Amino acid sequence: MASSSSCSTCTLQRGAFVPKEIKNRNRALMFNDKSFAVSADLAQSRLSVANQKLMKWNQTQKSPLMNPIQCRALEIENVPSFTVGKKFQLDDVIEAQQFDRDLLNAIFKVAREMEKIEKNSPGSQILKGYLMATLFYEPSTRTRLSFESAMKRLGGEVLTTENAREFSSAAKGETLEDTIRTVEGYADIIVMRHFESGAARRAATTAGIPIINAGDGPGQHPTQALLDVYTIEREIGKLDGIKVGLVGDLANGRTVRSLAYLLAKYQDVKIYFVSPDVVKMKDDIKEYLTSEGVEWEESADLMDVASKCDIVYQTRIQRERFGERNDLYEEARGKYIVDRDVLQVMQKHAVVMHPLPRLDEIAVDVDADPRAAYFRQAKNGLYIRMALLKLLLVGW
Amino acid sequence: MASSSSCSTCTLQRGAFVPKEIKNRNRALMFNDKSFAVSADLAQSRLSVANQKLMKWNQTQKSPLMNPIQCRALEIENVPSFTVGKKFQLDDVIEAQQFDRDLLNAIFKVAREMEKIEKNSPGSQILKGYLMATLFYEPSTRTRLSFESAMKRLGGEVLTTENAREFSSAAKGETLEDTIRTVEGYADIIVMRHFESGAARRAATTAGIPIINAGDGPGQHPTQALLDVYTIEREIGKLDGIKVGLVGDLANGRTVRSLAYLLAKYQDVKIYFVSPDVVKMKDDIKEYLTSEGVEWEESADLMDVASKCDIVYQTRIQRERFGERNDLYEEARGKYIVDRDVLQVMQKHAVVMHPLPRLDEIAVDVDADPRAAYFRQAKNGLYIRMALLKLLLVGW
Amino acid sequence: MASSSSCSTCTLQRGAFVPKEIKNRNRALMFNDKSFAVSADLAQSRLSVANQKLMKWNQTQKSPLMNPIQCRALEIENVPSFTVGKKFQLDDVIEAQQFDRDLLNAIFKVAREMEKIEKNSPGSQILKGYLMATLFYEPSTRTRLSFESAMKRLGGEVLTTENAREFSSAAKGETLEDTIRTVEGYADIIVMRHFESGAARRAATTAGIPIINAGDGPGQHPTQALLDVYTIEREIGKLDGIKVGLVGDLANGRTVRSLAYLLAKYQDVKIYFVSPDVVKMKDDIKEYLTSEGVEWEESADLMDVASKCDIVYQTRIQRERFGERNDLYEEARGKYIVDRDVLQVMQKHAVVMHPLPRLDEIAVDVDADPRAAYFRQAKNGLYIRMALLKLLLVGW
Repeated sequence: MASSSSCSTCTLQRGAFVPKEIKNRNRALMFNDKSFAVSADLAQSRLSVANQKLMKWNQTQKSPLMNPIQCRALEIENVPSFTVGKKFQLDDVIEAQQFDRDLLNAIFKVAREMEKIEKNSPGSQILKGYLMATLFYEPSTRTRLSFESAMKRLGGEVLTTENAREFSSAAKGETLEDTIRTVEGYADIIVMRHFESGAARRAATTAGIPIINAGDGPGQHPTQALLDVYTIEREIGKLDGIKVGLVGDLANGRTVRSLAYLLAKYQDVKIYFVSPDVVKMKDDIKEYLTSEGVEWEESADLMDVASKCDIVYQTRIQRERFGERNDLYEEARGKYIVDRDVLQVMQKHAVVMHPLPRLDEIAVDVDADPRAAYFRQAKNGLYIRMALLKLLLVGW
Repeated sequence: MASSSSCSTCTLQRGAFVPKEIKNRNRALMFNDKSFAVSADLAQSRLSVANQKLMKWNQTQKSPLMNPIQCRALEIENVPSFTVGKKFQLDDVIEAQQFDRDLLNAIFKVAREMEKIEKNSPGSQILKGYLMATLFYEPSTRTRLSFESAMKRLGGEVLTTENAREFSSAAKGETLEDTIRTVEGYADIIVMRHFESGAARRAATTAGIPIINAGDGPGQHPTQALLDVYTIEREIGKLDGIKVGLVGDLANGRTVRSLAYLLAKYQDVKIYFVSPDVVKMKDDIKEYLTSEGVEWEESADLMDVASKCDIVYQTRIQRERFGERNDLYEEARGKYIVDRDVLQVMQKHAVVMHPLPRLDEIAVDVDADPRAAYFRQAKNGLYIRMALLKLLLVGW
Repeated sequence: MASSSSCSTCTLQRGAFVPKEIKNRNRALMFNDKSFAVSADLAQSRLSVANQKLMKWNQTQKSPLMNPIQCRALEIENVPSFTVGKKFQLDDVIEAQQFDRDLLNAIFKVAREMEKIEKNSPGSQILKGYLMATLFYEPSTRTRLSFESAMKRLGGEVLTTENAREFSSAAKGETLEDTIRTVEGYADIIVMRHFESGAARRAATTAGIPIINAGDGPGQHPTQALLDVYTIEREIGKLDGIKVGLVGDLANGRTVRSLAYLLAKYQDVKIYFVSPDVVKMKDDIKEYLTSEGVEWEESADLMDVASKCDIVYQTRIQRERFGERNDLYEEARGKYIVDRDVLQVMQKHAVVMHPLPRLDEIAVDVDADPRAAYFRQAKNGLYIRMALLKLLLVGW
């Protein structure tokens, strides 16, 4: 059967003409005959999972045939020219390290398209028929709502659980792998939050459907890292040659660590670390930056740094890290506040970012300044997550 | 560009021809360029929020252009003749006091239309593409389900959170205002339940999108008040000249207090208060009724009141108000029960109402009498909430 | 009015021509006029509820008229030839006992159709416009997600609550019956999980809309029983003449008890019970099997049983049943493990089943064998629930 290229024809075909190889794949993914079970034999090895993910890839390549709405959406939005299945293959989102500069640019391009999607436009239906499960082993309402909004803004549907621990309660003792194999029967993609570092990678190794890591313990929170870099590009207009001040708790914040890591992929970036002594940036990141040729320095002078930087990235001092030493916490907490005095010395084009929630490390009267970018940054999280869901489910 | 009035033309235009001023507004609401951020400067003042809400209002006026499904729905349902943007502007639903008689009538007219919407009719899609966030700082399953059903019955989608306290946990300390500014990036309307009186108003002052108060502490629960008045009109056929017996806990029930307040807007209403001594109606409401020329009296004789009234509005005696004094509770609780004896003396056209849940203050064998209106009353909550969601999101 | 049989005509009629008796019924179901309230008088008796359910039945019969999408779906899928309203009437799903062999076959036939529904095909929209409430008095994420996925895969919408106990909290004391009468105002079907045996039946007696029991305490979990039998048929190709080994905790597991009960409906079934002494199958089931002419025997030799059976149905030893006697638990737990040695003696066509979650009663390296059917079994739960939702909401 010749695959039709005209969209109106697509519409007529809705669900009627699906190439055989896709039908077969679907059958296999349904887990419902032994031919799949045989291939599941191999599924224990990473190789086989890679094969399954490749099958998913083939699916994304052909999916416009299966979904006329999406087909029309692509026509309108102008399909990006990346070659499918070559460089920008995206099976799971597990850690910031998996993204190189080209992949980041490609994702950001899709995120920009997401910003332009209007209510009830064809673009708002590109994930119609898809089901996302939010499997949260610890609650994180902010992150969950952002993902669920992203899915629904694209016409997809959501299965929510914020008490996923129940699946693997001590009493019952189910493994994460068993849970994933059950849930992948109910959904097309899993967004997972877990309390253990490495859990997302384990899930991705098991699953035949895409996994997005929405934070695994002290480990990774890659979508936060992506939205941070995306926000810098949106606000400043470039990523090469920028000066970034990272302020606050640099020892414990996975946000600033991931951001420093990703910034190293760009040219002529200069990073300033401004933090109380007890929560300084750790040596591993400093060494990594040096090895990548990124200039960095530590400073105790927030005003000086703020006057030089394109980005002042403020973070919250996390009380829970100080245990009994409330005195140290109080001292650290009050040390570097972004207020109107800091704004005064900042350049006109520069912006203040913050991963939120904030306490008082940014004064409330900063909010009204156009350079306060943190609520726009939160909103960018929506577009980045829309882009990732689109890419993982239907491809570029 | 001339706005087209024919619906088929609308359909062709889907997402294509949006007047420029709306596009600009949309861009601004996206929080994603500094032109908005500048206007956010002003947003700290109520004046500016009012401006934003006015922008929303303009949006509703033009939205049929943007949503052809809704356009068709309006054609079929006959657009009500209220002049847009004049008297019946509705930006948020915060408290019973904001509604005057004309606005109530207008809302009730829309609620009646909501009752008639059939499954999969065009009317069932008028909120397609809209996203409602239920931001509940304390769980209230009954109220939440009613709002979520209302949204979904109109084709809209829902983001749910019943643990919104996490957003502003003591440990993290985010303000309500910051939470609202984050969530308004994910949704088109926020339905909020909070434990603090006044929280809904604070949220509405901050938000650029509509806020509906689904109860804020001992303060307000305006949609309950609206559904109560709507039920009286539906059951009795009028609001002027009615006689209403308010029975039970009149001191603590915000329901009866709001109802008394709203009834004062109608002509020749007579109110009877029937309650155990420990939970009598407070003086502020009595004085208000007197000042508005509403006749009222207290009575200890439920049978007598029931025989005279159009409405017997029973409420639950709330045990939690009695603390250690279980003896007082038990005495108060058993004093005024609506049972078949009460039904016996009630007029044929009169009805029994109750905000639910009930304990034993209405005997179960009353349920089977046609005059038991309380489950119909609960169902009316659905229609009132459908009407409010429609009005706040797409206008009259 | 003649009911039109052509689908395109259906589409034009969307919501326009609904036979009067359906309109009247809808009005009644809306709870919003006293004519319904009068009939509610009778609703206290089972007879009247039966009448209401019959009304629902009439509705399903005519619903294609009301929903053109579904109409098209039926055309494509070939309507099964069961005579409506005769033998296969299904109003609620309360217990395994309500299903006879013909009804099971009919349901399985629909489940097979469900397996074939493709994303964004007409079949994926047959429950569009319908709303399911998951009323869970105790959390069961696995079961809930399966039902919610089923509903959404058919285009329906979901209202979720996992804290339904709040409705009937000790403090407030609302009865289950009152809760059901409220929730049925918001949804078209209720999926209920409760901690008390018999709760689902009470709900079904009260409700005018269908109830599905998703587990009520130690009582019933009928959809699990259905998916087990469905899996056997899908895996083995038949139900008559099969040999089934039930292994593990046979005393406490409601799963194996229900399964034994349903297997008795088929010809020439042989059942082997393999369990530690402390958790043997109870006499009531043994006596029932005998009375139904089903051959059964107890065995302590798992290898021997495994070599003879078509199905090895393993279950988890539930620690919570052993109280303080951890020694007994540990002994029972380790006694019968399904591992590669067991696979070795099993026939080529035989399969291993398990209701999940598992602990270590099936070794992880069994998963890779094509005969490990337990994840396919979990997936079958989706199809069975899709079939039940379809049958209860729109009929055969």
